Amino acid sequence: MAGGSDSGMHVVVDRLLADLSTLAEVGSTGDGGSCRLALTDEDAGARELVVGWMRSLGLDVRIDRVGNVVAIRAGSDPDAAAVMTGSHIDTVRTGGRYDGTLGVLAGLEVVRALDDAGVTTRRPLAIAFFTDEEGSRFAPDMLGSLVYVGGLGPEDALGVTGIDGARLGDELDRIGWAGEAPVPGPAPYAFVELHIEQGPTLEEADVVIGAVTGVQGISWQEITLAGQSNHAGTTPMRLRRDPVYVAAQIVTYVRRLARETDGLRGTVGRLRLHPDLVNVVPATATLTVDLRHTSDGELSLAERRLAQFVEDTARREQVAVTSTRPLARFAPVAFHETVISLVETAAGKRGLSTLRMPSGAGHDAQMLARVCPTGMIFVPSRAGVSHNPAEHTDPEHLEAGASVLLDTLVELAA
Amino acid sequence: MAGGSDSGMHVVVDRLLADLSTLAEVGSTGDGGSCRLALTDEDAGARELVVGWMRSLGLDVRIDRVGNVVAIRAGSDPDAAAVMTGSHIDTVRTGGRYDGTLGVLAGLEVVRALDDAGVTTRRPLAIAFFTDEEGSRFAPDMLGSLVYVGGLGPEDALGVTGIDGARLGDELDRIGWAGEAPVPGPAPYAFVELHIEQGPTLEEADVVIGAVTGVQGISWQEITLAGQSNHAGTTPMRLRRDPVYVAAQIVTYVRRLARETDGLRGTVGRLRLHPDLVNVVPATATLTVDLRHTSDGELSLAERRLAQFVEDTARREQVAVTSTRPLARFAPVAFHETVISLVETAAGKRGLSTLRMPSGAGHDAQMLARVCPTGMIFVPSRAGVSHNPAEHTDPEHLEAGASVLLDTLVELAA
Repeated sequence: MAGGSDSGMHVVVDRLLADLSTLAEVGSTGDGGSCRLALTDEDAGARELVVGWMRSLGLDVRIDRVGNVVAIRAGSDPDAAAVMTGSHIDTVRTGGRYDGTLGVLAGLEVVRALDDAGVTTRRPLAIAFFTDEEGSRFAPDMLGSLVYVGGLGPEDALGVTGIDGARLGDELDRIGWAGEAPVPGPAPYAFVELHIEQGPTLEEADVVIGAVTGVQGISWQEITLAGQSNHAGTTPMRLRRDPVYVAAQIVTYVRRLARETDGLRGTVGRLRLHPDLVNVVPATATLTVDLRHTSDGELSLAERRLAQFVEDTARREQVAVTSTRPLARFAPVAFHETVISLVETAAGKRGLSTLRMPSGAGHDAQMLARVCPTGMIFVPSRAGVSHNPAEHTDPEHLEAGASVLLDTLVELAA
Repeated sequence: MAGGSDSGMHVVVDRLLADLSTLAEVGSTGDGGSCRLALTDEDAGARELVVGWMRSLGLDVRIDRVGNVVAIRAGSDPDAAAVMTGSHIDTVRTGGRYDGTLGVLAGLEVVRALDDAGVTTRRPLAIAFFTDEEGSRFAPDMLGSLVYVGGLGPEDALGVTGIDGARLGDELDRIGWAGEAPVPGPAPYAFVELHIEQGPTLEEADVVIGAVTGVQGISWQEITLAGQSNHAGTTPMRLRRDPVYVAAQIVTYVRRLARETDGLRGTVGRLRLHPDLVNVVPATATLTVDLRHTSDGELSLAERRLAQFVEDTARREQVAVTSTRPLARFAPVAFHETVISLVETAAGKRGLSTLRMPSGAGHDAQMLARVCPTGMIFVPSRAGVSHNPAEHTDPEHLEAGASVLLDTLVELAA
């Protein structure tokens, strides 16, 4: 795998694969996947396992007040800020074995590669896993990294109530992972996260390494339409005020908007009718619209065009828009050009194809981007499947990603 | 109210209103409505009340094996088949006070009007209420009248299981309303049912009497579409196989079809997505389509056009149509021209405006139409609202309808 002009150091993919397999057993769902919702017993088991590995590599492990774990490999310059890598080890309910875990365990494999080569970097190297990245149990997602960079106070984070009614702080205490390290944590010199793509773009393009340029902005809204519930047999068509019809026009328009706007993604994922009976024109329809774009201007424009369309269509159909409730709104995040270029260069030196691409999903890296130069490395997801036991990345792609991570970190830490 | 050339007999609307009010108290929901699901204690209470009134009018009450009640007022010709009127006294869960009850209690008011005038018709007059017209507890609806005309065997009917798990025959025994009269019952000479319109057509047209020409045919189907569940952020638009998009095209097409086909009504009343999450392209969408037309040919054509559209659209979007399940299919019923004309003539003689119209909803009359000349009289429903405590018909319209019923029955029984 090692080319002539790479760092000269080597990750050993079998060690990485073994760690991924061992970690996947914690909370195994028996079908190749794992369920380790944040701060459950399964999450605690995974934390023990990974921190055990960190300690056995001689790293200095620090746990902060919300349970973020940062393991430090010392550098030669005691005053230099650390170069950080990492991700998360919690999963969604039907999680695969690569989402998050790859970024953490590849960080440990980078440490082993440095140890094998007897290399000490100038800057310290930090390998982190952040609490509750998925947000499946405690909203919002990326909670731990948000607290790490000072975007959310620790008391607010500890007070979050989960979908099961549990308080985050209580669960953190219960599993014994509330630490002493202060938050916000120290700003790294730079942050680089290796992650599976969770989409089909690299596979489609037959490219091995994604040099991630940033994270799309996200706009989520819930639209509720109220018409007139009526008997399907006795109500003439011209007298209907049918919220399903308006909802259908919105679904169609979201597709049109996404096709007309380069880079826009639009999804109607939730749609519910009331009373939802075969022979009754519904009284209400409630649907969600998820819009994403790497440009905040384009995202805002799409929001405005959609709002106008909803208003016009509802008025024409004599249906009331009883609410348009924002569920989430995040501005796009642009990663640092220096880090993006380093990823491309590192991949190129190893003879790996690269593609500049935005991330469609959210990642801890977007939080770290608030405090330091940040980038991400993507490797292909088979068929774009993620958050699913069928999630898969080929071993050679895992090796490629970990090698590029190694070289990028070494370059940044020099 | 009585004009110069009507039957010369008069219904007394206050008596009819009093009976409607008294009956509405049985199973009252406290908001003007009633809940008397078939064969519940509330239904039994209503049966006792109405049969008490029948007996106090000297009628000969017969109860058949499925609980249909027929009360006979003797005619002068003992060999003549009876002219029958009637409807039902069960309700949906959120029933109003006119649906069904009007047709039964107006029949009793007709008897009082004949008694007041000292008139004996040549043919006997029969006032019936049929078991389980609504079908809200025991499917199918119009069960009692279907058994009465021989369309369903009594054992099959008694074996029906309700939404609460109860067996129809057990509930009929429990409330004490299983009778001895055989089914199928004797075919009447003719059948006329007075009913509220349950739609807005008469009110919109400012007409008092609907001369009902028949009942629309009904086609219900459930369509299940399967695409590819994907992450809303990471899946490019061009790679999506989105069942919601196809469902939206079907909703739009059903409206177009109904607008293009004179007399066709089309409704999507139920639509469910899975997994129904804001940031996931759904894996499946399941929707129902309710089509109605008075012509079986037009109804079948609409079904075929829809099926073609669904197939073409799903194929284009690479979405699978995993099932198209028929939920119900009833051919249209045409009422008897003689009866329709008699209703128009009777209304005209009383100076009442009339409109020939189909019934959008199902009624016991469509079952009786299998065995004898049949017709229906509609009176306006305020705002077209029915199956709702707000169901309302003005007293003058109740009086008009009962008067036309009186004259039509007298004419048929002469």
